[in-house]
Amino acid sequence: MRIALGIEYDGTDFLGWQRLTHGDTVQGTLEKALSFVANYPVDVTCAGRTDAGVHGRCQVVHFDTEVQRDMRGWVLGTCSNLPTSVAVLWAQPVPDGFHARFSARSRRYRYRILNRPVRAALDARYVTWERHPLDAARMHDAAQVLIGEHDFTAFRAISCQARHARREVLAVSVRREEEQVIVEIEANAFLHHMVRNIVGSLLMVGRGEQSVAWIAALLAGRNREVAGPTAPASGLTFLGPRYEAHWGLIPEVSQ
Amino acid sequence: MRIALGIEYDGTDFLGWQRLTHGDTVQGTLEKALSFVANYPVDVTCAGRTDAGVHGRCQVVHFDTEVQRDMRGWVLGTCSNLPTSVAVLWAQPVPDGFHARFSARSRRYRYRILNRPVRAALDARYVTWERHPLDAARMHDAAQVLIGEHDFTAFRAISCQARHARREVLAVSVRREEEQVIVEIEANAFLHHMVRNIVGSLLMVGRGEQSVAWIAALLAGRNREVAGPTAPASGLTFLGPRYEAHWGLIPEVSQ
Repeated sequence: MRIALGIEYDGTDFLGWQRLTHGDTVQGTLEKALSFVANYPVDVTCAGRTDAGVHGRCQVVHFDTEVQRDMRGWVLGTCSNLPTSVAVLWAQPVPDGFHARFSARSRRYRYRILNRPVRAALDARYVTWERHPLDAARMHDAAQVLIGEHDFTAFRAISCQARHARREVLAVSVRREEEQVIVEIEANAFLHHMVRNIVGSLLMVGRGEQSVAWIAALLAGRNREVAGPTAPASGLTFLGPRYEAHWGLIPEVSQ
Repeated sequence: MRIALGIEYDGTDFLGWQRLTHGDTVQGTLEKALSFVANYPVDVTCAGRTDAGVHGRCQVVHFDTEVQRDMRGWVLGTCSNLPTSVAVLWAQPVPDGFHARFSARSRRYRYRILNRPVRAALDARYVTWERHPLDAARMHDAAQVLIGEHDFTAFRAISCQARHARREVLAVSVRREEEQVIVEIEANAFLHHMVRNIVGSLLMVGRGEQSVAWIAALLAGRNREVAGPTAPASGLTFLGPRYEAHWGLIPEVSQ
């Protein structure tokens, strides 16, 4: 049977999602705990890989197993074998046709910027510090041009292994919440470093170093070298994927 | 001259506020950094000591110095000598009659409870986990009896060194924000463990183990032994003190 899991993690002390032989990753840590519960080696497939230092609010994975265990057992048993920085939020049986990555219709990310003269002490793991005052409304306006299907070469990491750079952004917003500026973006899929590269350019608009129209020019220009720098990993959280309702997953990850 | 500072800290890895010879404390760490900037030993006095693992959003301290430095220098110079877990938010000159502790008219605390079946992975440093569903409205109703001046012996730690147990609670609220239940309480001053002991009893009301009227009975009974257990430190944040407006401090710590 195929089982889907919701996974929350603090990415600070991991080398990223994807299993590596030379250090701790979220996938490796999760598979080790699941294998302990299943009593045989378990491989998981995730909805969206995250980089070192990036967090997950509701990552979704699937795996196949013949072991008979109730869903509560998968959740609690796995949690008790995981470090504090990773938790299994829920487990659900899914049809064999479900695939955590290929069935996902969209992914959502949140980027948190602490915008004040002094760096973070509380929440330092979850924010990126920007000392210069940001105009969140200006950033929001500039970002709206990203909505729709475009070639996102301007915001694509050199290391990106995707076949092409066309992605469809479904929604993007920038808002201020007291000392923080919050960027949220939903797309059918993302290129490597796409959110962090978009945020890096929006920061230049928010600081007044570039015009609102600059983001549109970057997008049209398809030149990574003239866009802003990649924003740090710590501010970024993968909120999770969304699947079609017929899969019957919990509302948080359903359309 | 006397200077007031606003201090933010993540208390997770400290043995509490108060300076100790045998381990890291927030006060000791701050005094070391300030002494480095001042170039002589600086002693600080705080608005409210916090226990091991308790966080500070805007702790206020004062110290006296003859060193001439602009306020920006005290903030940035001290920050650059502090670990990531402590930051100086602001510095302001204050009259000699100002005292961080004795001038404070009230103190505010926030307690964050993650209320879901699975423990925290994100924000694990800042919340306390409660797996049983909590009725926040019931907790709020029960807590309202605490408002006013009362003898808080029922919620006082055995180790408390205060002369008497009379304190005036100015406001208390319990509300749900998605998966979290947030308790906020403001009083003229607090007894040792008072917030955590109140939260420990409110949790019993929220789980339905005790009636709403139980909190009133506890308060009237003045018997610590029949109240709920002390809630864990991790969920607790000292939001900060409040001073009369004539001291001219920033709005966050002024009445």
